[in-house]
Amino acid sequence: MVPAGDPTQQTVDKLAKLLERGDAIVDGGNSRWTDDKRRAKALRGSGIDYVDVGVSGGVWGLEVGYCMMVGGPAKTVKRLAPILDVLAPETAANSRAAIGPRGWLHFGPAGAGHYVKMVHNGIEYGLMQAYAEGFNLFDACEYQLENAKIAHLWGQGSVVRSWLCELAARAFEADGNDLEAIEGYTEDSGEGRWTIADATAHDVPTPVITASLYARLRSRGNGEFADRVLAALRNQFGGHAVKPAPGKEGSR
Amino acid sequence: MVPAGDPTQQTVDKLAKLLERGDAIVDGGNSRWTDDKRRAKALRGSGIDYVDVGVSGGVWGLEVGYCMMVGGPAKTVKRLAPILDVLAPETAANSRAAIGPRGWLHFGPAGAGHYVKMVHNGIEYGLMQAYAEGFNLFDACEYQLENAKIAHLWGQGSVVRSWLCELAARAFEADGNDLEAIEGYTEDSGEGRWTIADATAHDVPTPVITASLYARLRSRGNGEFADRVLAALRNQFGGHAVKPAPGKEGSR
Amino acid sequence: MVPAGDPTQQTVDKLAKLLERGDAIVDGGNSRWTDDKRRAKALRGSGIDYVDVGVSGGVWGLEVGYCMMVGGPAKTVKRLAPILDVLAPETAANSRAAIGPRGWLHFGPAGAGHYVKMVHNGIEYGLMQAYAEGFNLFDACEYQLENAKIAHLWGQGSVVRSWLCELAARAFEADGNDLEAIEGYTEDSGEGRWTIADATAHDVPTPVITASLYARLRSRGNGEFADRVLAALRNQFGGHAVKPAPGKEGSR
Amino acid sequence: MVPAGDPTQQTVDKLAKLLERGDAIVDGGNSRWTDDKRRAKALRGSGIDYVDVGVSGGVWGLEVGYCMMVGGPAKTVKRLAPILDVLAPETAANSRAAIGPRGWLHFGPAGAGHYVKMVHNGIEYGLMQAYAEGFNLFDACEYQLENAKIAHLWGQGSVVRSWLCELAARAFEADGNDLEAIEGYTEDSGEGRWTIADATAHDVPTPVITASLYARLRSRGNGEFADRVLAALRNQFGGHAVKPAPGKEGSR
Repeated sequence: MVPAGDPTQQTVDKLAKLLERGDAIVDGGNSRWTDDKRRAKALRGSGIDYVDVGVSGGVWGLEVGYCMMVGGPAKTVKRLAPILDVLAPETAANSRAAIGPRGWLHFGPAGAGHYVKMVHNGIEYGLMQAYAEGFNLFDACEYQLENAKIAHLWGQGSVVRSWLCELAARAFEADGNDLEAIEGYTEDSGEGRWTIADATAHDVPTPVITASLYARLRSRGNGEFADRVLAALRNQFGGHAVKPAPGKEGSR
Repeated sequence: MVPAGDPTQQTVDKLAKLLERGDAIVDGGNSRWTDDKRRAKALRGSGIDYVDVGVSGGVWGLEVGYCMMVGGPAKTVKRLAPILDVLAPETAANSRAAIGPRGWLHFGPAGAGHYVKMVHNGIEYGLMQAYAEGFNLFDACEYQLENAKIAHLWGQGSVVRSWLCELAARAFEADGNDLEAIEGYTEDSGEGRWTIADATAHDVPTPVITASLYARLRSRGNGEFADRVLAALRNQFGGHAVKPAPGKEGSR
Repeated sequence: MVPAGDPTQQTVDKLAKLLERGDAIVDGGNSRWTDDKRRAKALRGSGIDYVDVGVSGGVWGLEVGYCMMVGGPAKTVKRLAPILDVLAPETAANSRAAIGPRGWLHFGPAGAGHYVKMVHNGIEYGLMQAYAEGFNLFDACEYQLENAKIAHLWGQGSVVRSWLCELAARAFEADGNDLEAIEGYTEDSGEGRWTIADATAHDVPTPVITASLYARLRSRGNGEFADRVLAALRNQFGGHAVKPAPGKEGSR
Repeated sequence: MVPAGDPTQQTVDKLAKLLERGDAIVDGGNSRWTDDKRRAKALRGSGIDYVDVGVSGGVWGLEVGYCMMVGGPAKTVKRLAPILDVLAPETAANSRAAIGPRGWLHFGPAGAGHYVKMVHNGIEYGLMQAYAEGFNLFDACEYQLENAKIAHLWGQGSVVRSWLCELAARAFEADGNDLEAIEGYTEDSGEGRWTIADATAHDVPTPVITASLYARLRSRGNGEFADRVLAALRNQFGGHAVKPAPGKEGSR
């Protein structure tokens, strides 16, 4: 996870002291969009522009360029365009008419870039969990299946072909069909939680994105106390008979 | 869980050989309602009546009587009424007008009794998981709370007062505020799965009952392969950079 | 829903001006526990005590007393005890040893009362949705069932007997087996959302409580845009053939 | 949805009468894998081979070839290989080493092909719902966003790039940013249900795939009775005061 929160804030504060009117701070991390709005407002007085850039592509970005989602003042983003053009990948032929030659877009005022990136990550959780559940079933089912081959095959024109599906093929090739060496422990960047929080604030139900976050919480051992409450409750009505408390016979 | 499936079938088969026309077989276990229908039909030829009785109350039933949900031929159920009246608890004052003096009801032809009991158990899963999640939060929150006292207090006129809430109070008293000695491993009777299967067959979404079943599956370590797929996928795009495969640069 | 938020804050502000050192403000509404903490701190300077009281029982409380969950300074709560004793119901025999003669408890410093009440409401959502899903299946299934009778029967010693189950019996008696006259539109008090937010902040998964909130959001027509995205997507790959975009043939 | 169930069975029965020992029946529809197993067994006596072929690619397959998942006797599949090679797309460079030059694979005995395709569709539900929830939030959020542009941008090297994301771009271009003309009504092929049923049979929790199916059920108006039960229950404890039933005062 790209640094966010305190380290980012401290860096912004330090920079603010060093910069002059007309300079711009670009936050290319994973800040929460509400922090972007707060920072942009705080810097406005000193005439420093704040631009938030959500970046996606993972480590592969080093090789093939980053997809960038940008928020901030239009004129500042325009000034930074040459830099963004260099960092971004070349747009694929069938998207050029819609978004231009390079893979970045300006979505609106401060926070808009990280907001779109946040939802991108929420969706990412859902996509990953959907594949994970499917391969879990392959692992448990009556057929002897090779997960890497399935992931590779699905890349050949199937409806579920995707970058994550390609990565699944690589993962099973690298770690084996049973992923024996892998610990099923998955962190979550804050962005999934923020997506759910803002969706709830707008009354938008997100059952899949939420189930994906909860699966990650479970993968880290959380929710285990609830399991114990369940077991204890079950033991109470399923276990050995106990005398009803005095004065309660009638109500049972 | 009361015996169901094979043992029940074998018993029914044995009894069928010993019984005569006009006799009745009463299945007071947890049979799937579809098995009841099949058995009732199979016995019809030999003139043996089949009555399915779903029973709820847990071990407490021994002390205070069982709530019974009955399916089968009306005339046979009527014949068995005296027995059901003895086994059932006395109906509480405010329900007598609706269901009569004793706590059992005839819901329809073969299977109706176990069907109502099946859904009862599906609901039971949901209720238990709702309390479990709440107490999980008490265990994790910023306040030092005594779960047994909360469960007892909620019994005093709160909206969530219930038999299961009373059992929660007993459980925390018996097993301690942290349930240290309890293993968070919870079996599921088939009835939760059957409820979800029939609901799906009728296009009825059951998000809460289903989430409750899945929580039990997780409590037994299931779903762990999905966790590993997730971790392996995350490592692929978050980990060290790899060269794109030949001929794929453009598409990334 | 008992008033919370702005109206409460305004009342507290007004009272603060009228009260003197040593007086106490009792918030018996549904304030968010974090607001209680903020208010208690703000009033400390002027020597005014703040006590938060979560109340449960619904309209029935008028007849039979309220279950109360209390937070605030111990000495102030002790001073208010006589009032709480009058408002609270008499404790049932089998809970007296655990919580004393009257149905209220002091759970800790400012916010503790509303915190326990908040989780109570989160659980309440889950319980209600579990019953709702079960009765939905009865409405759709192959048997002709009378929901009021089932709810009454379950009150006779079944594991799912509860106050809400009694209310379900009353609801079906009042509104009919098909609830024709009822609009399936259900508001949510903020407390369900706050429960989920705090659970997530503590990494506690709450699949059932969350599914219950989302069911309410759906009942109000939310999530409908997602339905349209789904339909539009499905039409794209299931509908009429379209020419692949230039230069993309290879990648399919 | 490609024909399955009865029409397929009738066709198989007709063909069985016309074919001779050594002939093969290829089911390229969406049969349930358990039907494949049954049919293959039934045909074995007459020496007719049965091959199940799960096909993915949607209408685009006409242009760019179908990804095919095959089950059946090895020697028969080998005999049919030339046909499958023609129908399948050319394998992308980075998958050739894993699965060979054409986009189809033989996964095992009868049913294996449709089984892998079934899970493919289950995953597909999850992927679609994840995107749907994300765009639902864009529709509701504080920023003015153009969904088509976002979908196009995400295609440029982002982690969520996929075929479905490309289709989302096309959908928003075809139907507008608000999808006004689209009805949010989405059918489900049986395969999502079958995936969940087999996962449950293997104790594999599938929260995301299940939530996706339930979202489709809701999109078609199902679950509405549960909404009404909820509203009726809420009215019972939140509405006007009612007298407690005789003899029940104590228990409240």
